Amino acid sequence: MYAPISSSSSAFLGQRSSTNSRWSKVVITSRSCETIRCVVTPEKTAYKTKVSRNANPAKLQAGYLFPEIARRRAAHIQKYPDAQVISLGIGDTTEPIPEVIASEMAMRANALSTSEGYSGYGAEQGDKKLRAAIASTYYGGLSFSDGIFYGGLGIEESDIFVSDEAKSDISLLQLLFGSKVTMAVQDPSCPAYVDSSVIIGQTGLFQKDAEKCHLLLFTKQSNRLYSDKGLAGEADDSPRSIFEIPGAKEVAIETSSFSKYAGFTGVRLGWTVVPKELLFSDGFPVAKDFGRIICKSFNGASNIAQAGGVACLTTEGLQAMQDVVQFYKENTKIIVDTFTSLGFKVYGAKNAPYVWVHFPGQSSWDVFAEILEKVHLVTTPGSGFGPAGEGFIGVSAFSHRHNVLEACRRLEQLYK
Amino acid sequence: MYAPISSSSSAFLGQRSSTNSRWSKVVITSRSCETIRCVVTPEKTAYKTKVSRNANPAKLQAGYLFPEIARRRAAHIQKYPDAQVISLGIGDTTEPIPEVIASEMAMRANALSTSEGYSGYGAEQGDKKLRAAIASTYYGGLSFSDGIFYGGLGIEESDIFVSDEAKSDISLLQLLFGSKVTMAVQDPSCPAYVDSSVIIGQTGLFQKDAEKCHLLLFTKQSNRLYSDKGLAGEADDSPRSIFEIPGAKEVAIETSSFSKYAGFTGVRLGWTVVPKELLFSDGFPVAKDFGRIICKSFNGASNIAQAGGVACLTTEGLQAMQDVVQFYKENTKIIVDTFTSLGFKVYGAKNAPYVWVHFPGQSSWDVFAEILEKVHLVTTPGSGFGPAGEGFIGVSAFSHRHNVLEACRRLEQLYK
Repeated sequence: MYAPISSSSSAFLGQRSSTNSRWSKVVITSRSCETIRCVVTPEKTAYKTKVSRNANPAKLQAGYLFPEIARRRAAHIQKYPDAQVISLGIGDTTEPIPEVIASEMAMRANALSTSEGYSGYGAEQGDKKLRAAIASTYYGGLSFSDGIFYGGLGIEESDIFVSDEAKSDISLLQLLFGSKVTMAVQDPSCPAYVDSSVIIGQTGLFQKDAEKCHLLLFTKQSNRLYSDKGLAGEADDSPRSIFEIPGAKEVAIETSSFSKYAGFTGVRLGWTVVPKELLFSDGFPVAKDFGRIICKSFNGASNIAQAGGVACLTTEGLQAMQDVVQFYKENTKIIVDTFTSLGFKVYGAKNAPYVWVHFPGQSSWDVFAEILEKVHLVTTPGSGFGPAGEGFIGVSAFSHRHNVLEACRRLEQLYK
Repeated sequence: MYAPISSSSSAFLGQRSSTNSRWSKVVITSRSCETIRCVVTPEKTAYKTKVSRNANPAKLQAGYLFPEIARRRAAHIQKYPDAQVISLGIGDTTEPIPEVIASEMAMRANALSTSEGYSGYGAEQGDKKLRAAIASTYYGGLSFSDGIFYGGLGIEESDIFVSDEAKSDISLLQLLFGSKVTMAVQDPSCPAYVDSSVIIGQTGLFQKDAEKCHLLLFTKQSNRLYSDKGLAGEADDSPRSIFEIPGAKEVAIETSSFSKYAGFTGVRLGWTVVPKELLFSDGFPVAKDFGRIICKSFNGASNIAQAGGVACLTTEGLQAMQDVVQFYKENTKIIVDTFTSLGFKVYGAKNAPYVWVHFPGQSSWDVFAEILEKVHLVTTPGSGFGPAGEGFIGVSAFSHRHNVLEACRRLEQLYK
């Protein structure tokens, strides 16, 4: 109906003889409009291409954590159609994006319909303005401590690569390093971190007993640097970046996103820091290869989302984000207090709205099943994040307040 | 300043001893604010990690076509600071997004700041509504020809995977197939198609003499199917999809995007069709593995962009897009007529706004350089798209009308 103006690209997997076509066609066998009989050419055995299945995706564990949770939730709803199921499982944001941020995105969208406001392809690495704002907000500034000025974290605009979010960047990092390096993933961790390594072929079969990597320990060393930067009561327990550690720029890459800060899980915006100081063993800068891969595998984050990112990092945007963060922190405290008062030992929940509750000697999936069955609450079995998560359940504080309060009421009923 | 609420993930490339830190610090050596003297610890030789550079990105050809054009353009502007350089090189859209589409994106952005309108993570494969609209608009419907009803192209909603655009999808397709398959790329083609294969390791060195793959020939066989579908004068010269070919669903994947149709080059929205009928040699459906890779390497296109996609596929949106397409087609005709009247043989420019002009026996880069030097026009050297492009220059019709008219005036001046 509409002629294409750009050419599409297609990958042929094999050649088929047109005389052997299995394409169905519907043939009119009667002229009467009311009694058209349609005859469909019968489908024969499915044609198989000569292309072998890539062994890497085949190695992925069948039960991906969140789909499995969704499956059990659906089965539960079918079993108890009248139950008010509350989901504190997956870490998805629930509160609206602050108006000061959303309205900037709306303005950008409207501007795209004007000659002055229209723009096409942007830089693959992201808008200069946004990259500069990320560098100065999260990695910049001077700090003063013990008579010494520290020169911020030394991360500059050119070290920042804007993306559509961390999951995509982690996949591009796999392309960057290829399949011949050894990857260490902390345990427990988000399943996608392991799976993206499997896809590129960095493992044989999934190794359940792989040595644990306590990555987060590294980021707790240098909080002192930030004690004068307004972190208030949390100054010594809230590391912001791995680059707070002296020397980290020469050994580390950091991936982050606006998803949880700003409620951008659906809007899609993130960034990766690849410092120019980071070098391969032959001295070649890692950032140069990452830049090339970005340019060939990505075409920049949506310009509307990037306008939202810039709005996030204004004074008003930062304050508005902080208000939403505060709301989720209050949710977290309610959940922590509930479990603690019931005698459970609780971990995490300080710098992220995820509460880890210990059920010593029990299976995570058993605890998950019991909570769902008895009080209609969806949580996350810790073992889904790796062997070290066994015996824990994860409870997300990303939820509306009334759901959190009701969930806690039910937990008290179950465990009192 | 703002405590992170989500954990960031970091990849350590090595361990550094903190006693050997090269992190600069600025030390105050005077108490007077006016005469602070800053002493920066001198940087020693750069630290190299023990991680080997991945050989695949290293094999990419150094001069990526578009950066090289940009470099020459910048040098030209430096040489002739007063010249009015006109760029008909890269295929980037220039006309505003139709208001009927942009306003829907603005509405979606604003709605994200309300409780009712907010949404978080969407399906990785895209919104159901958008997938259905793509399937029915571009692949659906019945057609009637020679007394036979053809059942559309038989592509369904579940065969559509929404993405942030073709470049990202082509990279994910490389992850899908892995490095052990042979890839055929048409010649000439967009450099990114070759480069994404190089990154995954599917080639040794770039093979300039690789056998040519005349992929587009395949899509011209079945235009007849569309002769009743409103393509008017172009019916027999405007294939819409590779799936017009009987049997193609069992051997082909198609990638497309809203970039050029709707001016979404900056907004970022596209899709890939992986039909359920497409099977690996062992009978496993390709779409199942692609779905798993999408879920682990991508988290869905921006919800605002997807709202724009749905607006594109309404009756008003389709008409508005067609008006913009018509504008670019008129640009194309102006360029074609100019070159033809000057005695050049011109190719392409029928189903895409790219005019290929033949300069027999000449080097593409020489012609590019002459046109830039003498009349300040940026074109694209055909050889940048592959060996078969040598002797051609590409001229894009994506430009404002006054630029096209002025460019043609200069070309007449140069070649008359």
